Amino acid sequence: LDFNYVEQARARQAQLTKPAGSLGRLEEIAAQVAGITRSVIPVVQRRAVVVMAADHGVTAEGVSAYPKDVTPQMVLNFLAGGAAINALARQAHADVIVVDIGVAADLEHPNLLSRKVRRGTANMAREAAMSEVEVLQAINIGIAVLENLAEQGLDLVATGEMGIGNTTAASALSACLLDVPAEYVTGRGTGIDDQQLAHKVRIIERAIAHNAPDISQPLDVLAKLGGLEIAGLVGVILAAASRRIPIIIDGFISSAAALVAWSLAPTVRDYLFAGHLSVERGHRLILEKLDLEPLLNLNLRLGEGTGAVLAMHIIEGALRTHKEMATFSEASVSNKDNA
Amino acid sequence: LDFNYVEQARARQAQLTKPAGSLGRLEEIAAQVAGITRSVIPVVQRRAVVVMAADHGVTAEGVSAYPKDVTPQMVLNFLAGGAAINALARQAHADVIVVDIGVAADLEHPNLLSRKVRRGTANMAREAAMSEVEVLQAINIGIAVLENLAEQGLDLVATGEMGIGNTTAASALSACLLDVPAEYVTGRGTGIDDQQLAHKVRIIERAIAHNAPDISQPLDVLAKLGGLEIAGLVGVILAAASRRIPIIIDGFISSAAALVAWSLAPTVRDYLFAGHLSVERGHRLILEKLDLEPLLNLNLRLGEGTGAVLAMHIIEGALRTHKEMATFSEASVSNKDNA
Repeated sequence: LDFNYVEQARARQAQLTKPAGSLGRLEEIAAQVAGITRSVIPVVQRRAVVVMAADHGVTAEGVSAYPKDVTPQMVLNFLAGGAAINALARQAHADVIVVDIGVAADLEHPNLLSRKVRRGTANMAREAAMSEVEVLQAINIGIAVLENLAEQGLDLVATGEMGIGNTTAASALSACLLDVPAEYVTGRGTGIDDQQLAHKVRIIERAIAHNAPDISQPLDVLAKLGGLEIAGLVGVILAAASRRIPIIIDGFISSAAALVAWSLAPTVRDYLFAGHLSVERGHRLILEKLDLEPLLNLNLRLGEGTGAVLAMHIIEGALRTHKEMATFSEASVSNKDNA
Repeated sequence: LDFNYVEQARARQAQLTKPAGSLGRLEEIAAQVAGITRSVIPVVQRRAVVVMAADHGVTAEGVSAYPKDVTPQMVLNFLAGGAAINALARQAHADVIVVDIGVAADLEHPNLLSRKVRRGTANMAREAAMSEVEVLQAINIGIAVLENLAEQGLDLVATGEMGIGNTTAASALSACLLDVPAEYVTGRGTGIDDQQLAHKVRIIERAIAHNAPDISQPLDVLAKLGGLEIAGLVGVILAAASRRIPIIIDGFISSAAALVAWSLAPTVRDYLFAGHLSVERGHRLILEKLDLEPLLNLNLRLGEGTGAVLAMHIIEGALRTHKEMATFSEASVSNKDNA
């Protein structure tokens, strides 16, 4: 953050026609975006959500309530405009950028960014999810996607994902990078029962034990446990921060990507907003680690970027009040101190 | 609520391309609005926030950080479009309806609804804030304002207010209607210090002791403790519920009005959404009494309807996903049960 701009934004807030601090987090958001973008009165006109899609070999172990065919089906649904993320992105005037970074099916569509690194990860319960080369490829794809968007003009980006089995990968990653037992960060994903949840925890424990990632090396953890879409989002987050573009992270999967990005480059944290608090139990622990307070808490657990895009309205509200409100002197309103 | 429509809305939600329940509160909101409006796929196109403004005689006791001149000054600021509520209403495409229901100053403006019952309430620390006739006049004004909006077409209404000293009135009302000590429901308003807060609590205790309202009679409590803008909002809430229009209540003052309305007619509760949780300490207790879960929690304490209007985006998100998402069969996506 550029604290020169943070301070200038705060000074403006103190002059606006409201009791000091009465807009609460909206005031903090405005100051943070000012510090991110080096603009005293920033705008977030041009918006996008990057939805990275990939499959997970670990679904062979029966960790998800849905079959993996749903990944390509939902990618086509995104491209046809029929998913929750499409409805919410239309509302928020955000472009939906769909990236096939590793779906285990052949997909073609004029609006699909086909950047397949491989057809799904390997089954991490038996081998490394991907190689070191592949994880770097996936991160670079995320960087390139963001750079391309930034070249066209981008003020605010949200992270989204689709991949049957990806809560399993996110839980495994979180357990390693937060150094907590797998059960602390493993939830029901798309909707498994108690017995399936216990099985999912055991699979994650087995994957970690079998691959023995070096937890001091985030890329080793990411390569061994996956997934490709998470690696892609790591690239998106790193590139957006380096471009001084505010990033809204979505739920558990996106936050696992943020955790990896933060492990690689701790300063990215200042460029992040947590869109919401997911029902997935690992999410809260990641946000606490990153010291991020979620903007919304609506019991969402869908992913796709839905909570992040819904939170765009909060960011916009913060910047609209910051920009559009009259000052005490402009409006001839008595301030507390000159009463 | 018409549960026939609630059930039909839930049946639709179960067919949309997402894991069951994964949109959390958005799904509940869609079902509730369906039940309110008797529409399986409701819309909230035409929106307004009704901002009732009035003064409070109790400011003579030094209970506020701001002078009472700020009430008319801020009304003019609303009419000029320079306040926080204007910025947020522009974002939410909501009309701002400003009503002078009891400002202690002469105000004229083509867009102001001049419905002054009296020039501010009397000082409740020494006498009843208003008469029984005046409280009914104020409620009727709120009803008439809402009816007029509804005639022109209204799908969603938010409540807002302005009145220096009105947290004092709301605290006094809440203490009586929740039957709790004044200090439980008294906060810092626009920003008083510890000593001033203790003074404010004593003034509220004195007002309650002196007026001895009959806590089983909500209108007696409202007349004796005020304020005019709160009574006006009671009318807005009652009329909107009777018109089957969903209502988003804002912070502490608006919620005190909702508490009075609920005391008069408990079924209004089902037509209410709590926009946000205010910093004002009494707010949580009112929402718990009404069994309402706030949609946002952003440390706001400005009033004006700001939190309620910001929450309109959440309601819209709920209804957009409900309306615009493809079903499993439309999108050829495998559901959990037919996998």
